[in-house]
Amino acid sequence: MDIKKYVTDLALEARAGARSLAKATAEQKNCVLIKMAEAIKKRSMELIAENKKDIAYAEGKGLSKALIDRLALTDKRIKEMAQGLTEVTQLPDPVGEIVHMWQRPNGMTVGKMRVPIGVIAIIYESRPNVTADATSLCLKAGNAVILRGGSEAIHSNKAIAEILRDVARTEGIDEGAITFIDIPDREAIIEMLKLEGTIDLVIPRGGEGLIRTVTENSLVPVLKHYKGVCHVFVDRDADLIMAEEICFNAKVQRPGTCNAMETMLVDESIAEGFLPKMLKKFEDAGVQLRGCPRTLALRPDIIEVKEEDYYREYLDLILNVKVVNDMEDAMEHIAKYGSAHSDAIVTMNYDRAMRFLREVDSSAVLVNASTRLNDGYQFGLGAEIGISTDKIHARGPMGLEELTCTKFIVLGNGQLRE
Amino acid sequence: MDIKKYVTDLALEARAGARSLAKATAEQKNCVLIKMAEAIKKRSMELIAENKKDIAYAEGKGLSKALIDRLALTDKRIKEMAQGLTEVTQLPDPVGEIVHMWQRPNGMTVGKMRVPIGVIAIIYESRPNVTADATSLCLKAGNAVILRGGSEAIHSNKAIAEILRDVARTEGIDEGAITFIDIPDREAIIEMLKLEGTIDLVIPRGGEGLIRTVTENSLVPVLKHYKGVCHVFVDRDADLIMAEEICFNAKVQRPGTCNAMETMLVDESIAEGFLPKMLKKFEDAGVQLRGCPRTLALRPDIIEVKEEDYYREYLDLILNVKVVNDMEDAMEHIAKYGSAHSDAIVTMNYDRAMRFLREVDSSAVLVNASTRLNDGYQFGLGAEIGISTDKIHARGPMGLEELTCTKFIVLGNGQLRE
Repeated sequence: MDIKKYVTDLALEARAGARSLAKATAEQKNCVLIKMAEAIKKRSMELIAENKKDIAYAEGKGLSKALIDRLALTDKRIKEMAQGLTEVTQLPDPVGEIVHMWQRPNGMTVGKMRVPIGVIAIIYESRPNVTADATSLCLKAGNAVILRGGSEAIHSNKAIAEILRDVARTEGIDEGAITFIDIPDREAIIEMLKLEGTIDLVIPRGGEGLIRTVTENSLVPVLKHYKGVCHVFVDRDADLIMAEEICFNAKVQRPGTCNAMETMLVDESIAEGFLPKMLKKFEDAGVQLRGCPRTLALRPDIIEVKEEDYYREYLDLILNVKVVNDMEDAMEHIAKYGSAHSDAIVTMNYDRAMRFLREVDSSAVLVNASTRLNDGYQFGLGAEIGISTDKIHARGPMGLEELTCTKFIVLGNGQLRE
Repeated sequence: MDIKKYVTDLALEARAGARSLAKATAEQKNCVLIKMAEAIKKRSMELIAENKKDIAYAEGKGLSKALIDRLALTDKRIKEMAQGLTEVTQLPDPVGEIVHMWQRPNGMTVGKMRVPIGVIAIIYESRPNVTADATSLCLKAGNAVILRGGSEAIHSNKAIAEILRDVARTEGIDEGAITFIDIPDREAIIEMLKLEGTIDLVIPRGGEGLIRTVTENSLVPVLKHYKGVCHVFVDRDADLIMAEEICFNAKVQRPGTCNAMETMLVDESIAEGFLPKMLKKFEDAGVQLRGCPRTLALRPDIIEVKEEDYYREYLDLILNVKVVNDMEDAMEHIAKYGSAHSDAIVTMNYDRAMRFLREVDSSAVLVNASTRLNDGYQFGLGAEIGISTDKIHARGPMGLEELTCTKFIVLGNGQLRE
């Protein structure tokens, strides 16, 4: 099989799909999304049958129970997937919005109009629901999508994609708007990443290995999310009860997520009053603590943190605890060891709150709120296609707006360049 | 010499410079820019002496007179360069702007704040004034800059960069904010492009060869400008006098620029009334014409256009002329052969004007105005660092705003994730 030709043809099909989709009105797109939701529910037996093949294969390969659970499509999960498609219809269509518009001295009116990006490739691992979620967001923003799911879910992903394509076709949308790479070869990804000019953007969703591979091989621009090494700094002027709640929520509410806290930084002047009770609360919740020497002076029984721990994304009930001299010291720690994902300060001091907001350079900087709130739904963007730790194009949760770009438009009446 | 180490050290110096610069107020940055303008003028003898070395080298190498002219620094050009630095102080500082801010049901306020990108590498060719222009824009937007000019202007570029660094140092800005690669080896570029995480963005400014090299070798995100194959479509409902002026301006006013027209598309129903006079006017201005068969039916004496000509960026007094069936046909031509740079329609028909604006997917789409107006100054953005034909991050003229990104900020009072 000629993989290069296969992928190139698919991308050209997507290109044509993108042109057709760019002209669709919000009403047309919403109508297609609702029909897709209905079809997903109606054909759930088919999905479950295909999903069983993936699960049997995973079990045969001896994959962990947790991984197999992530893979499984149940009636409930299929309903949620359909629900997700319907929810996207509730979001405003970003396409065609005039971002702003102004008049020039020569009388011409200049503006910026929001338009689809074009063709977006999504490379993802594990959970099959991403097939539907990513498609719905790309489609609503007027983009064609090329889907490349993980090989462990290939039957499930393909079945979902086929249902979505069937609906597109019967609803008069060029089916190139949804294309699916159904060969498991890694070479297909590498070839796809060369198609600059045909594919406009690649979004890898998965582990660091996948993201590195994509970044290193791509001529197409990439929007990515590396790890989340997040901090909460408890300032000397913090409300200590609030600080305790925020730190606990940031670590314990769902430790396996990228916006969970990995290191708690505490101002030395309140460490003695704050730490003992806080650390006890963490321990009661099963958190394994790793402390700096000054933390150990208060609690000699806990493990000492190593420098390399400060760089780690535990994604688990493990927490580094460090006593710092002041906010300056905390911000230096965050700049050095953090991943510029989500960082919070707890303080009642106005001046330090404003300085922390301004000077910490992360995708979300929070005052008196849990890092766990850095999320598209929590921020009110509606659905999200991931959290970008890049600085180009999109930073933080990526919603529909981040799946568009703008073009300049000019309304003139004969203006020339002098 | 260890080129990898040299470039890495330089980039780390820039990283530190970026952190210092991110904290600078608009007043501090403007003050530095004005001092830089003064220093450039005061030390013009020094600049001219260094520039002479480049010119002598270029003459020795037998470079064309046009190229040598582009290289030369005269008193007038030095004054203009200083003027450029001063003008940037007049532009509003984008850093710290809150793009928008909204309240969530749980009472927290979420917003987006504009922040510097960080470290920006500019790789450019020929004209030494880019050294000062690019630095002023990066600096005003709070970014450290790594400059890599063409080898033919290395003495001039280095002299300018040194003056700018001297001013930064005496004004208390970390001089890492302006770093300059002063070795001519191409390997320095290749090594620099690997420094993902230390350098945040690369902007290549120059020919297609340079841009390809950068794109193919870069792990760092790239903002680029490929060629400008621009069109004017004269609709059947055009004001033909306006059409004549716009087409003439788009081709002749400065043919060597990326936003000049390369192909004129004319609706068949007005071709006979419009073309003869228009083509005569072009010929009187020395434009070489290449016509489609239907153009040749009216003017059998001109050269026939070849299909590959439609893809070409002439940057010269050469023009393709094509008669099309209607706007649909024109838009298809633009989608197929154009470079999505600047495309215009001349029409008095409201419906077609609106459809052309919406459906043509170029960095600037103009109604009744010359393509030559697609420019940062003309659009009112102030200075520009180039015109992006990318769809990610920035599209069209890139001003100060495009040299920033945003971060999410949250003002809470104890909000947690439920």
